[in-house]
Amino acid sequence: MTATSAFSDEPGRVAQLVTAFLSAQSGSVVSPAELPEVVLSVGADARDDCAIYDVSGPVSLVVGSDYVRGAKFILYELGVLSGFDIGYYLVVANVSDIAAMGAAPIGVLTVIRYPNDVDDREFHEIMAGIHQACTDSGTLNVGGDIGNAERVVLSGTALGICERGKSLQRSGAGPGDVLCVTGPCGLLGAAVAYFPKRDANGWTLPTDVEQALLDSWRRPRARVAEGRILSLYGYGTACQDTSDGLKATIEQIAAASDVGFDVFEDSIPMSAAVERVAQLLDVDATTLALSASSDFQLVFTIDAASVDSCTEAFLAAGLTMYVIGKATPSAHGIRMLDRDSNPRPLPGVAWKHQSTDISTLVPDGDSPSPA
Amino acid sequence: MTATSAFSDEPGRVAQLVTAFLSAQSGSVVSPAELPEVVLSVGADARDDCAIYDVSGPVSLVVGSDYVRGAKFILYELGVLSGFDIGYYLVVANVSDIAAMGAAPIGVLTVIRYPNDVDDREFHEIMAGIHQACTDSGTLNVGGDIGNAERVVLSGTALGICERGKSLQRSGAGPGDVLCVTGPCGLLGAAVAYFPKRDANGWTLPTDVEQALLDSWRRPRARVAEGRILSLYGYGTACQDTSDGLKATIEQIAAASDVGFDVFEDSIPMSAAVERVAQLLDVDATTLALSASSDFQLVFTIDAASVDSCTEAFLAAGLTMYVIGKATPSAHGIRMLDRDSNPRPLPGVAWKHQSTDISTLVPDGDSPSPA
Repeated sequence: MTATSAFSDEPGRVAQLVTAFLSAQSGSVVSPAELPEVVLSVGADARDDCAIYDVSGPVSLVVGSDYVRGAKFILYELGVLSGFDIGYYLVVANVSDIAAMGAAPIGVLTVIRYPNDVDDREFHEIMAGIHQACTDSGTLNVGGDIGNAERVVLSGTALGICERGKSLQRSGAGPGDVLCVTGPCGLLGAAVAYFPKRDANGWTLPTDVEQALLDSWRRPRARVAEGRILSLYGYGTACQDTSDGLKATIEQIAAASDVGFDVFEDSIPMSAAVERVAQLLDVDATTLALSASSDFQLVFTIDAASVDSCTEAFLAAGLTMYVIGKATPSAHGIRMLDRDSNPRPLPGVAWKHQSTDISTLVPDGDSPSPA
Repeated sequence: MTATSAFSDEPGRVAQLVTAFLSAQSGSVVSPAELPEVVLSVGADARDDCAIYDVSGPVSLVVGSDYVRGAKFILYELGVLSGFDIGYYLVVANVSDIAAMGAAPIGVLTVIRYPNDVDDREFHEIMAGIHQACTDSGTLNVGGDIGNAERVVLSGTALGICERGKSLQRSGAGPGDVLCVTGPCGLLGAAVAYFPKRDANGWTLPTDVEQALLDSWRRPRARVAEGRILSLYGYGTACQDTSDGLKATIEQIAAASDVGFDVFEDSIPMSAAVERVAQLLDVDATTLALSASSDFQLVFTIDAASVDSCTEAFLAAGLTMYVIGKATPSAHGIRMLDRDSNPRPLPGVAWKHQSTDISTLVPDGDSPSPA
C-alpha cells in the first residue's frame, strides 16, 4: 500500500492488503494442547471459497455469528474510535460468544463491506485491528467476505471447540447455585452515554477516566480463559457473556434456566469510570452498571459447593471472578437485595435491540440508538 | 403473527416469527450416513449464543461466509423478487461454497438486518425463504443474528463436512485434466440485464423465458450432490462454484492451479433464455453465458482417465455434467477454441466486485451495479 493508492477495488484489496495479514495459515494446529488436534488445512492464505479444518477426534464444535450493529458505530462516527478499533471489536464480539460456551476459538470469519469513501488506509486499519484481535484472542482470521456496500457493515462468525459434551449453556442454572461475574460491567454503555454529549454539556472527566471508557471499546477482551476453566473442570452450570448488559444477561439466564436470582447490590464490582459518568448523568451508578453495555464479561452460575475451588482456579490463572448473587426458584423472580436484604426489582435498562434504551438514562437525550 | 401486528421489535420477532422455523433442532443428526456422525446438540431452538455440534470422528470441516451484496438486490428492489426469494438465495449462496469443496452442509447461520420499514410480514417471508432453502439443501438454519439496520443486510455462514483430507480446492488442476461444468451458466446475469430495462426498452420475452430467468434467482440450487460425487470418489482435482460467472471461475481455477485452459466453444451448455436475452442486447450468447452471473453451477477438473466413470456416476444419480475444455500448461493461457480449433481470448465480463461490469454488455446501460 502506498499513500498514492488511496482506493483500490476488491481484488486489489485482497491481493495487496488482506494477503499481508493472512499468510502462512494453512497447516497450522489451531486447537489448544488439551483438546483433540484440529489442523487448519486450508486457511485464508489459500484464497479458496472456504476454510477447511481437519478434525482428529471427538469434540464439540461451537459456532455463532454476530453483526456489529449501528449503535456500536456511534463512537466511530464521532471519530473517537478508529478503523483499527472497530475491526478489533468485531473479532472480540464474536470470540466472546465462543468463550461464553466454554470453548477455545479455532477461527474467525469476517464480513467487511464498505462504501466508496473508505480508502485503502482505512480498510487496512480495519484489517489490522481484526488481525490484532485474533492474535490477542489466540486465533486466526480464516476467511470471510469483503467488498462494497452503502456504508460500513461488519459481521463475523467465530468457531471454537471444547471437550465433547462439556460446553456451557444458558439453561443449566438451578436454585441454590451461586451467581458470578468476571468483572465490572457498564463501561461501554457509559462511554456511549458520555462522549456524544460531552462537548455540548461541557462535561470534563479526567484523562485517565476518559481513557478507561475508551479502552473498554478499543481493547475489549473475550473471556476465553475464564470460559475454559468453567467448562473443562465442570464448574459452570450456566454461562453467558454480557454483550446485552448485565441486567439483560441475568434475565436471560433466569429465563433459559427457569430460575430466579437474588442479586447482592453491594457485591457488584464497580468501575470508577462508570461511577463518574453516573454522577454526570445524575443516575445511580449500579443502575448504569447493569444497563445495556457490551462489556463481554461472563456471567455464570456454579454449584455452591464449588465456589472455593473455582475461585482458586481463577486466582491461579490470574483471573478474576465476583460472587454477586444466588439462584432461587423461578417464582421468586429476579430481585436486587441491598445490604439490609431489602429487595427491589433489578434496576437498569436492558438492551432491547432496535432501540437503545440507555438513552432513557441520559438527560436531554437524543438517543444514541442504532440506525 | 397477525395482520394487525405489522411491526415488532427484535425480541418479539425472535419469539414469534423465528422460533416457528427453528423448533426441535437440538439433538438432530446432521451428517449424511456415509460420514462420521455429527449431532446438532444445541440448535437454534435453544436460543443460546451459539450452536453446538458434537462431532464423533475424524472429518474435514468446511466453513465459509457470503454477504449477499447490493447487486443481488436489484430485482428485489424492482419488486421482481420477494423477501422469500432473497432469503432462499442467501442460503443457497452460502451452501454453494460448501458444495464446491465437496462437503455436505451441516448448518447455516444467517445474519438478517432490516430497516424499520420492513414489517413482520416481510420479515416472516425472508425467514420462510431461508427455512425452505435449508430444507431443500438438506440442512438447518442453526442461528445467526437479526435486528435493525439502515437497509436490508443479508449475510450468512455455512458449515459442512467431508471425509478428512478429501475436500476439493481450486488449486489441484494439472495439464491434461478435463474441464467440466454441471450446467448452463449466465441465467442470473441475463435476468439482471433484462428486467431493469425491459419496460423502458419495450422488450417482451415469452412468459416461459421470463419465468426461466426469474427461477434462476428464485430457486437456485447448491450443487451438493455433484460436489459429493467429486470428493467422495476422488474424481475432482479442482472445483469452484460459478458465483462470479463462468469466465471468472475458469480464470480463478487457472490462477490457483497454475494451468491454462482451452475451452471448447461448442461444448458450453447454453440456456435458451440466455440466448434470447443476448439477442435483445445484441451481444454474442456465449459471451453472455460466460459473464458475471451467480448460477451456482460447479466448474471442476478431473483426470482424463476418469471422464467415463465420473459421467456414469453423475448419470446414475440423475445429475448432469458437461465437458467444456481441457487444462494446459499455464504458458498457454486461457483460450476459447471454435469448432475449427481457432483460438481467441475467452470472451465475457468477469465479475469484478465493486463494479458490475456486465453493464458494459448492455446497450445504453445505466449500470445494474451494487451500491
